[in-house]
Amino acid sequence: MRRSATEPAPGPVPTTMRGLRKIRPAPGAELVEIPVPAPGPGEVLIEVAAASICGTDLHIYHWDPWAAGRIKHLPMTFGHEVAGRIAAVGPEVHHLRPGVFVSAEGHVFCGFCPPCRSGRAHICENLRILGVDFDGGFADYVVIPERNAWEVDRRIPPEVASIHDPFGNAVHTAFSGDGASELVGATVVVLGCGPIGLFAVGVARAAGARQVIAVEPNEFRQALAKQMGADAVVDPNKEDPVSTVLAATDGHGAEVVLEMSGVPTVIDQGTRMLAPGGRMSLLGLPPGPVSLDLTDQVIFKEARLIGVTGRELFRTWQQTTTLLATGMVDVSPVITHRFPLRDFAQAFDVMASGRSGKVILLPSRE
Amino acid sequence: MRRSATEPAPGPVPTTMRGLRKIRPAPGAELVEIPVPAPGPGEVLIEVAAASICGTDLHIYHWDPWAAGRIKHLPMTFGHEVAGRIAAVGPEVHHLRPGVFVSAEGHVFCGFCPPCRSGRAHICENLRILGVDFDGGFADYVVIPERNAWEVDRRIPPEVASIHDPFGNAVHTAFSGDGASELVGATVVVLGCGPIGLFAVGVARAAGARQVIAVEPNEFRQALAKQMGADAVVDPNKEDPVSTVLAATDGHGAEVVLEMSGVPTVIDQGTRMLAPGGRMSLLGLPPGPVSLDLTDQVIFKEARLIGVTGRELFRTWQQTTTLLATGMVDVSPVITHRFPLRDFAQAFDVMASGRSGKVILLPSRE
Amino acid sequence: MRRSATEPAPGPVPTTMRGLRKIRPAPGAELVEIPVPAPGPGEVLIEVAAASICGTDLHIYHWDPWAAGRIKHLPMTFGHEVAGRIAAVGPEVHHLRPGVFVSAEGHVFCGFCPPCRSGRAHICENLRILGVDFDGGFADYVVIPERNAWEVDRRIPPEVASIHDPFGNAVHTAFSGDGASELVGATVVVLGCGPIGLFAVGVARAAGARQVIAVEPNEFRQALAKQMGADAVVDPNKEDPVSTVLAATDGHGAEVVLEMSGVPTVIDQGTRMLAPGGRMSLLGLPPGPVSLDLTDQVIFKEARLIGVTGRELFRTWQQTTTLLATGMVDVSPVITHRFPLRDFAQAFDVMASGRSGKVILLPSRE
Amino acid sequence: MRRSATEPAPGPVPTTMRGLRKIRPAPGAELVEIPVPAPGPGEVLIEVAAASICGTDLHIYHWDPWAAGRIKHLPMTFGHEVAGRIAAVGPEVHHLRPGVFVSAEGHVFCGFCPPCRSGRAHICENLRILGVDFDGGFADYVVIPERNAWEVDRRIPPEVASIHDPFGNAVHTAFSGDGASELVGATVVVLGCGPIGLFAVGVARAAGARQVIAVEPNEFRQALAKQMGADAVVDPNKEDPVSTVLAATDGHGAEVVLEMSGVPTVIDQGTRMLAPGGRMSLLGLPPGPVSLDLTDQVIFKEARLIGVTGRELFRTWQQTTTLLATGMVDVSPVITHRFPLRDFAQAFDVMASGRSGKVILLPSRE
Repeated sequence: MRRSATEPAPGPVPTTMRGLRKIRPAPGAELVEIPVPAPGPGEVLIEVAAASICGTDLHIYHWDPWAAGRIKHLPMTFGHEVAGRIAAVGPEVHHLRPGVFVSAEGHVFCGFCPPCRSGRAHICENLRILGVDFDGGFADYVVIPERNAWEVDRRIPPEVASIHDPFGNAVHTAFSGDGASELVGATVVVLGCGPIGLFAVGVARAAGARQVIAVEPNEFRQALAKQMGADAVVDPNKEDPVSTVLAATDGHGAEVVLEMSGVPTVIDQGTRMLAPGGRMSLLGLPPGPVSLDLTDQVIFKEARLIGVTGRELFRTWQQTTTLLATGMVDVSPVITHRFPLRDFAQAFDVMASGRSGKVILLPSRE
Repeated sequence: MRRSATEPAPGPVPTTMRGLRKIRPAPGAELVEIPVPAPGPGEVLIEVAAASICGTDLHIYHWDPWAAGRIKHLPMTFGHEVAGRIAAVGPEVHHLRPGVFVSAEGHVFCGFCPPCRSGRAHICENLRILGVDFDGGFADYVVIPERNAWEVDRRIPPEVASIHDPFGNAVHTAFSGDGASELVGATVVVLGCGPIGLFAVGVARAAGARQVIAVEPNEFRQALAKQMGADAVVDPNKEDPVSTVLAATDGHGAEVVLEMSGVPTVIDQGTRMLAPGGRMSLLGLPPGPVSLDLTDQVIFKEARLIGVTGRELFRTWQQTTTLLATGMVDVSPVITHRFPLRDFAQAFDVMASGRSGKVILLPSRE
Repeated sequence: MRRSATEPAPGPVPTTMRGLRKIRPAPGAELVEIPVPAPGPGEVLIEVAAASICGTDLHIYHWDPWAAGRIKHLPMTFGHEVAGRIAAVGPEVHHLRPGVFVSAEGHVFCGFCPPCRSGRAHICENLRILGVDFDGGFADYVVIPERNAWEVDRRIPPEVASIHDPFGNAVHTAFSGDGASELVGATVVVLGCGPIGLFAVGVARAAGARQVIAVEPNEFRQALAKQMGADAVVDPNKEDPVSTVLAATDGHGAEVVLEMSGVPTVIDQGTRMLAPGGRMSLLGLPPGPVSLDLTDQVIFKEARLIGVTGRELFRTWQQTTTLLATGMVDVSPVITHRFPLRDFAQAFDVMASGRSGKVILLPSRE
Repeated sequence: MRRSATEPAPGPVPTTMRGLRKIRPAPGAELVEIPVPAPGPGEVLIEVAAASICGTDLHIYHWDPWAAGRIKHLPMTFGHEVAGRIAAVGPEVHHLRPGVFVSAEGHVFCGFCPPCRSGRAHICENLRILGVDFDGGFADYVVIPERNAWEVDRRIPPEVASIHDPFGNAVHTAFSGDGASELVGATVVVLGCGPIGLFAVGVARAAGARQVIAVEPNEFRQALAKQMGADAVVDPNKEDPVSTVLAATDGHGAEVVLEMSGVPTVIDQGTRMLAPGGRMSLLGLPPGPVSLDLTDQVIFKEARLIGVTGRELFRTWQQTTTLLATGMVDVSPVITHRFPLRDFAQAFDVMASGRSGKVILLPSRE
């Protein structure tokens, strides 16, 4: 699976390609033949080697209310977790060349707004998202800005390269607040073990946590959490996560809670299992208001609730590279399914089944 | 008002003194003659020069549900914001001597629990509070542990010495999160201008805020906020604080919000006026659950909600000393009333009127 | 001096202009007529309103050994502290337009090396410097990359706009280490009061320092340090800076020392005046090895020596803008001289005299 | 070796005991019968189970110039790395009781000076050291203040309990600067592999370093460094450490260097192997001035030199407990020798031989 040390010369780029497109505002998607896009100034064309399906893609595929409210332009190719070789470059590309294997940062930032100018481009005020705001990567080829292309370490195989984005979410969440210093020797609880939660279990392990406790109702995912290094996995349908965490910490609570579920009652539970001075980082998106007991669970404890989104550009990518390339975190248990691009319908069904980790589409594997 | 450079020799300590005591579980309090307490090992006896009234004291005086649920032992002398000269020391006191003028840190910590052992004694798991859990300082004399006695800078007058505790709350709140670095050049909003909020306005000013916006419905306090250096004071009954703050920041929001009101809807407003990456520090205690829009106001913004309680022991006291002794913050506008101890009833009435800042009891001024 | 609220439409750009050029590897420079450069992709052309002279420019002018070793290509227009209106833009410029008044960040970074990718573009591994590695701003027009152009706040006049670069050095130095949190209430010593040291005095003042002590042998600069807000100015030829600082801090030492002199013995003195736990930030460049007593002055004290270079891109620029635009720091005392561009020889003489602060060249003032 | 879960009732304390004492200002020491000391107020008497020999003890034993200049009072029992059960407590001891197994923090702090009051008691201005300033722990019993006694986790055996002090040095050094966040994914170099350096190798491993490179000329210690988890061990007599580290990091340098040697030329090398933005923490004590190239190795790199001494009280002890009790670091390879107390001469000879890690004296093992 490891890529070869010498980059093969990229072949000629065809004029048309397949793209998985949302044609109309309704459930489903179509794999259609469309022109290969041309990279403009500062852009690169990537020959897609692997593209993994995100929860966001499932929303778009099913065309749920969130998707209907968020997607502005149809038809559109979707997919944003994508990796592959650069096939061609536009003018004003000075740092990358054809043949280089890259993974896409899907958040396209302006570089000039206040957050961008202060090193926080991931919360750019003019953010545009690959496969959401413009054509994405469930296709044979995709165009992204050169600076959104991250050269992938040679030790990392293409499938793993395609999950740099969600793995980076886990890294950024784990290292938010006062950073990795809070993880060493800490009890770390991960609430919700979808793929990002599973990655977070592995990151907390690698960063020196004393014990990692995963909370997850789905049995399939519970098993994956164990494989990723969780010391204990709590099924919230069978035992109370708050009292379990308190018992596992002699009543002191967890120093760090990583919230990946987006479930309001789970977020409330997260505050109740926090130790004095503890930190809860919030990545999961609750669909409505969340009611919290701030006085006893946050203020008297001097706890911190830290909002987290995306990945730091590109500090998180550097950390991600180290964790993946050196084997400090082995994500292979989480990549549970692979499909050729043409079998996308089957892939989305598996993704919706609750019996999968990451599901990867492989354009070239046909 | 400035204390003399040479400490006067303390006079002989009488055997009895006056103490303002809560005798029974009902509204009111009585000024009674009781024995002067003797300092035990590691304790000092303070001849009270000034004692200021805290909101907590008002709860105790009125014997509201909070007080009824919290106070365990009656009769008890209350009051915890207190300063005066050391009149006598118990055995095993090695660092302070009679004649030294001190202010009391009312939080008595164990020194051995995990928070104490990690430099966070202010969230000690075995915290006992002066004037709440044991006899306090609305009296001619009070006993506290030597290590809870803070030697007051000579430039600070006795009245100001008695408000080190609430001023320290303001300092600790302002400098929480990533500390003073976040204040320099920032728009800082103070929600709620009771005495601690008013102090916070002054601290933010001194620490280099770009602009300080105070939000407060009470006209008397609005005027004090101006005097403490607020650039703008928003009356939430007349204009919407969220849109006012956004307008004052070109739509970006405030980098720092200091929440002093404890009102759930105000806390929600606080999140809505935060800039991306901003910090809201929570000191006010909401009486019940608080409903928040975490997704849009915290997570996508990468905002931080920071619980704050008490003061850091004793880093906050060092900062407080500098800010008060050098005149960087002038708290004199906030000290609006002074009464001899025997006029305590009048003092508590003024305190409850909403037309006061800090109200100070002066045992010796009769 | 304040710029008008409506940007004037830029006039037509001529084909030739004056440029102060280093023609040959020898002392001196020549003001010659050369073509106006054309902005390439991602670049902007600035009509220079003000350009200030840096110490580096003096090295180049005098062609000292440093300049002879550093400058690779002649002839070259020099000067890098420059501000003016955008006169024209090249292709692929999307955020700025002609008429906008900007100040130049002279450090051109690649955006792709490890430091750039981790938000530390100011220590880019491929750094190229305006007026050192390519044609600079002592001219009627200058070309820089769009992303190196900082839109200047309207409240800031052109002269002050031209000193954003050295003022930013002072801001970055003052806020290095643990940042502004260390300045509030601290004794801050500034070693060496050239223009950057003078700016640092003002920044420390604005950020809430308890006292600012400046150390400087030159009488002219001593007076400027006072004007910038130094509480005390120490002449190292008349008194020992170390014992003076210790005396001014009751023997504890200074919490923060900002080293701007680059003199080895002064750096050694800096460590000796540091308080336990203190921070010395080093911006001045010592010409040779520096001998330090690490055991007693750094290790047993747990002191920190922090290297500082350039400015953070662009967090420092945001801080700089706030400090200058709001009047928190008034730099007008430091701008001591102004000359039309044609009088450059006189300007360099004043600059070398030791009786100047910032010296500004004004191309249009003839 | 693991201690039993139920603390045995301590036996009766005898009136006399053996103590290894420095009787006169000359090399050597004598094991003599002396009275068992009585714990005063706030003090505990420990029945010594294990005491390890520090480099400082070797200085005292050999009575070198450092010892002759530092030790004020003879005769004195020395030794400060000591653990055992509490045999008796003095008055005013409220948190510990006889039978509890503790390890001694040898730095006795005042609790009232500025560093103590700001949570930095380990750099107390009135520090007194066990076995250096007053009678220490190479004896059957030793008295220390209650707050200097750290209750040892049951999973930690007595020998390991006796090395909490030097292990804590390693933890504090590794986590200095910006803390453990800098270690995750970093190249960490440990300069000098005496026992503390060896511990540091293990700590860096546990905290998620990408690679740990140890530099050590002594072959015996090189082997131990490997056992502690070093990825590479450099013999500075055979290869250049600077170029080796640069080669191992693709020329970028090490993000973190932990300096344990105290050798001036090695410290200089440490700066040369630092990456831009890197951190070198200094624990080893150079005997004289150190000459550094600050301009190129610190300032242009924005590197940080961080002085480190002792251990944070008691945050480091909490971290130490977790690392040792959970097995995250296994220190057993470093504990190379054990002797009964009566064989102290042999123990000191082994200690001086360069062919030992930690050497432990066991009073009861006779």
